Amino acid sequence: MAKEIKGIAASNGVAIAKAYKLVDPDLSFDTRTVDDVQAEKDRVEAAFLASKTDLEQIRDKAATSMGKEEAEVFTAHIMVLEDPELLGGITGKIDSDSVNAEAALKETTDMYIGMFEAMADDNPYMAERAADIRDVTKRVLSHLLGKELPNPALIKEEVVIVAKDMTPSDTAQLDRQYVKGFITNVGGRTAHAAIMARTLEIPAIVGSKVATEEIQDGDMVILDGLDGVAIVDPSEDQITTYRAKGDKYAAQKAEWATLKNEKSVSADGKEFLVGANIGTPKDLEGVVDNGSEGIGLYRTEFLYMDSKELPTEDEQFEAYKKVLEGMNGKPVTVRTMDIGGDKYLPYLPLPEEENPFLGYRAIRISLDRDDIFRTQLRALLRASVYGDLWIMFPMVATLPEFRAARDIFNEEKAKLQEAGVPVADDIKLGIMIEVPAAAVLADKFAQEVDFFSIGTNDLIGYSMAADRGNDKISYLYQPYNPSILRLIKNVIDSAHKYGKFAAMCGEMAGDPIAVPVLVGMGLDEFSMSATSVLQTRSLMKRLDTTKMAELADKALDAETNEEVIKLVQEAVPAE
Amino acid sequence: MAKEIKGIAASNGVAIAKAYKLVDPDLSFDTRTVDDVQAEKDRVEAAFLASKTDLEQIRDKAATSMGKEEAEVFTAHIMVLEDPELLGGITGKIDSDSVNAEAALKETTDMYIGMFEAMADDNPYMAERAADIRDVTKRVLSHLLGKELPNPALIKEEVVIVAKDMTPSDTAQLDRQYVKGFITNVGGRTAHAAIMARTLEIPAIVGSKVATEEIQDGDMVILDGLDGVAIVDPSEDQITTYRAKGDKYAAQKAEWATLKNEKSVSADGKEFLVGANIGTPKDLEGVVDNGSEGIGLYRTEFLYMDSKELPTEDEQFEAYKKVLEGMNGKPVTVRTMDIGGDKYLPYLPLPEEENPFLGYRAIRISLDRDDIFRTQLRALLRASVYGDLWIMFPMVATLPEFRAARDIFNEEKAKLQEAGVPVADDIKLGIMIEVPAAAVLADKFAQEVDFFSIGTNDLIGYSMAADRGNDKISYLYQPYNPSILRLIKNVIDSAHKYGKFAAMCGEMAGDPIAVPVLVGMGLDEFSMSATSVLQTRSLMKRLDTTKMAELADKALDAETNEEVIKLVQEAVPAE
Repeated sequence: MAKEIKGIAASNGVAIAKAYKLVDPDLSFDTRTVDDVQAEKDRVEAAFLASKTDLEQIRDKAATSMGKEEAEVFTAHIMVLEDPELLGGITGKIDSDSVNAEAALKETTDMYIGMFEAMADDNPYMAERAADIRDVTKRVLSHLLGKELPNPALIKEEVVIVAKDMTPSDTAQLDRQYVKGFITNVGGRTAHAAIMARTLEIPAIVGSKVATEEIQDGDMVILDGLDGVAIVDPSEDQITTYRAKGDKYAAQKAEWATLKNEKSVSADGKEFLVGANIGTPKDLEGVVDNGSEGIGLYRTEFLYMDSKELPTEDEQFEAYKKVLEGMNGKPVTVRTMDIGGDKYLPYLPLPEEENPFLGYRAIRISLDRDDIFRTQLRALLRASVYGDLWIMFPMVATLPEFRAARDIFNEEKAKLQEAGVPVADDIKLGIMIEVPAAAVLADKFAQEVDFFSIGTNDLIGYSMAADRGNDKISYLYQPYNPSILRLIKNVIDSAHKYGKFAAMCGEMAGDPIAVPVLVGMGLDEFSMSATSVLQTRSLMKRLDTTKMAELADKALDAETNEEVIKLVQEAVPAE
Repeated sequence: MAKEIKGIAASNGVAIAKAYKLVDPDLSFDTRTVDDVQAEKDRVEAAFLASKTDLEQIRDKAATSMGKEEAEVFTAHIMVLEDPELLGGITGKIDSDSVNAEAALKETTDMYIGMFEAMADDNPYMAERAADIRDVTKRVLSHLLGKELPNPALIKEEVVIVAKDMTPSDTAQLDRQYVKGFITNVGGRTAHAAIMARTLEIPAIVGSKVATEEIQDGDMVILDGLDGVAIVDPSEDQITTYRAKGDKYAAQKAEWATLKNEKSVSADGKEFLVGANIGTPKDLEGVVDNGSEGIGLYRTEFLYMDSKELPTEDEQFEAYKKVLEGMNGKPVTVRTMDIGGDKYLPYLPLPEEENPFLGYRAIRISLDRDDIFRTQLRALLRASVYGDLWIMFPMVATLPEFRAARDIFNEEKAKLQEAGVPVADDIKLGIMIEVPAAAVLADKFAQEVDFFSIGTNDLIGYSMAADRGNDKISYLYQPYNPSILRLIKNVIDSAHKYGKFAAMCGEMAGDPIAVPVLVGMGLDEFSMSATSVLQTRSLMKRLDTTKMAELADKALDAETNEEVIKLVQEAVPAE
């Protein structure tokens, strides 16, 4: 009998394939006294050998699909298995205590993990060692218990992934050729898995709560990412119906594709800018393919995170130049380094913080470590002659912070000009609006900046005092809550009062529920995942700005998130 | 030569006494191979014995000054020392490795700490065991190295405490008879040490950065908590000058004391309510002594934190009744359980969170665990007949949260009434305003609640996206930032528009810079540390509400925190 599972629709499309569960098997065991000590030692050695064979296969596969560097973590795991002291410790424990292999393994590796973790405070490398041993222990234990660990790198047929959650390292291991969709137990529309699915343009459902319980490995699954419904063991009729739904969606996407070279215009002829968010110059292809009218957010922290040390001025210059040239004169908004929060650099130790999202991050680091900041600004200034450069500072909370950043920018600009280096004279300087205090004081900021870009992910998180990564309180991530809409309205109105430009670069900018309200508020630029650009442009064509302004007024006077969703659904009929 | 150290003035008054450094000595050592193994084993045994003697003394002293329960942590430490397995492990290590006592101690205890910490995820008790071993190791090591650990419980003369920071467990060990003041390296006006000093009415300076470096044990120190200046090795003249300053402050306090039975009235005759914040019924004495006109915040989480299990309905009822009766009909605002964030209950495991301040806490827990919440509400309802009870819910972010809490309250009220239990019919229901989204949407909330109480500590933290406990970004804790003032103004105006009551119970309510602005905005109730009540009442007598309203308008239109401070200083001449 077919079973239905509901979740949050996180990425559009329909997939029909077998389930592949990315879930660890039960690895619990009893500690026993044994008579045949030699047999246990033989079992451990066999399990070590089998684990090594696994890992060599995974490493080779990963090296092909993801590159050598990404595969190195598996080499580290193999080295743990090859360490004679570890195996010796386990067999020694079997000898001395006459216990079964599982218990000797666990006790020995727990001791090492404990030791490494005790040292991790002084030496972050030790934490990685502890994690390596933990991973390897899991694998050896699975062989001892005759259970199979999921090896996503080895998938060789079309599947739908079923997982509690997907971490970045999980998604890195997936072969994109075979993975047709995701369903996870936890997370919301802005979870890593959801964003990943939208980038890959495969359907996804998140926050289903029960997927890993209700779906078994190999079950046939229909994944409807449009409505957030999965069907396990579907009937032939259901497969036919959903295949048709998938085809209809594909046709819709084809229609959107015809808008690629058009402008973004409302039904009554008002023009908007629909741009894309990128992380590296590699993303340019998707930006151009989807007809983006600019880049509303270039997240430069990947330059820092993908590096073994601080990127040099020249390395940065090359990246910025490539993006500016690639956009061919269209505006490119670069956000200066947004490190901290949940983003760390191995070579730049940050203080341990109890609440890193409320801590030392982004512009707070840049102003404190202006050596790093000046290098970035110089690279940007040098690249500015290759296109239309806009620079914005993340996490600005107060006017003195913006002024300090602007002063440093002007100092570096003057130095370069003095040295005869060509620099564009019309670089725009703006701030991200993501700290509630800045949204409230937008009228004061608007008199000094060239533009705002509203970062809704963090703005919502801080305004609701809710970490969007925290599953226990995911109900508080409410983009349509009237309080959030009022803050956004204040930012847009303040910008326009002083003739400035108001953009948005959070997830909300490409959200079909939010777009009609934002059009009604007169937002100038909408920047989003490249894959949402055409859909948004298509939606705008159906919107009348006067009617949307009325909708926005009603939404601002609503009481709850849910009420706003209803108002939008009434005002904007489905396509 | 006298040296001057500047810091943040955290608690008023002047102290002159010898420095007592609450700083651990350097306990580093070299690992050596030894010939005389027996000598090392003897050293370890002697150090264990000396540590035990220390701890017995400290425990007895703590039991007298703080009570038996608080002294139990030291009994746990003594038990670690008495564990034959630990001592055996260390002497065994000396035997087998021929290493010095220090190295054998450290290696053995590190292994235990590592093991206990590895188990701590499943069993929080294990984390405490690890902490116990760490504490005991420090003490034994200090004896091995011939260095003395600070034993604050054993202070027997008047001192000024010098510390990097003071934790609640540090302050619990202090004998209040001898401690005349604090100076710490880190923290702001709202740090634990600062609040503690104000409660004890002793001068304090926090955030001095260098106190532990610049002051040596036994140095004579002048601590000027009025201006945030400490003088080390003062001259006779300086001692005379500061003694006079201390006396003048004492005289001012005496004058404030004459206002004890007066109302809180502005120069032009407008009445305000000045109340106090409390944590337990024990604080009532200070509330009455300082002439508070009510309790604006009764933090009930101490009922939960001081307990080994969830407090029963009857235990809670007794506490609430005592406070209501003690206030003799004056209003008492009780905040329901605010657990989570940085407050944990050993018997109620909460999920590990990356940003607990943005997580599962306060009303979010109460609505999720309504069994706990209903017990608290029933206790409050039963106590309501003993005074004027106001109940408020912490961390409310959305209207549906308030409605859900109110519904639960009404259900429990109806059940009690049905059972014939007497219940007051005029209990007021309100919310804390500390989540920015609630401050923005205050006009909608005002139509459903009886009152607001603005919790400025958290409201500022979330609005500025800055954890006030995080030293790296303490500059962002800006109570006078115009964005914060605008949010507060919106809350007060929204309340008054619908005939509701607007209170404030954060640190800001008793801050002499903020009070004039808040008077100008028409805040109804100011609730603060009991020790600030009379000073605030005295300040209000000098304020004209029309002039303060003009000041408030200017402050709301200012650009920065610093600008607002200047505006207040110009508008309100010093006494």
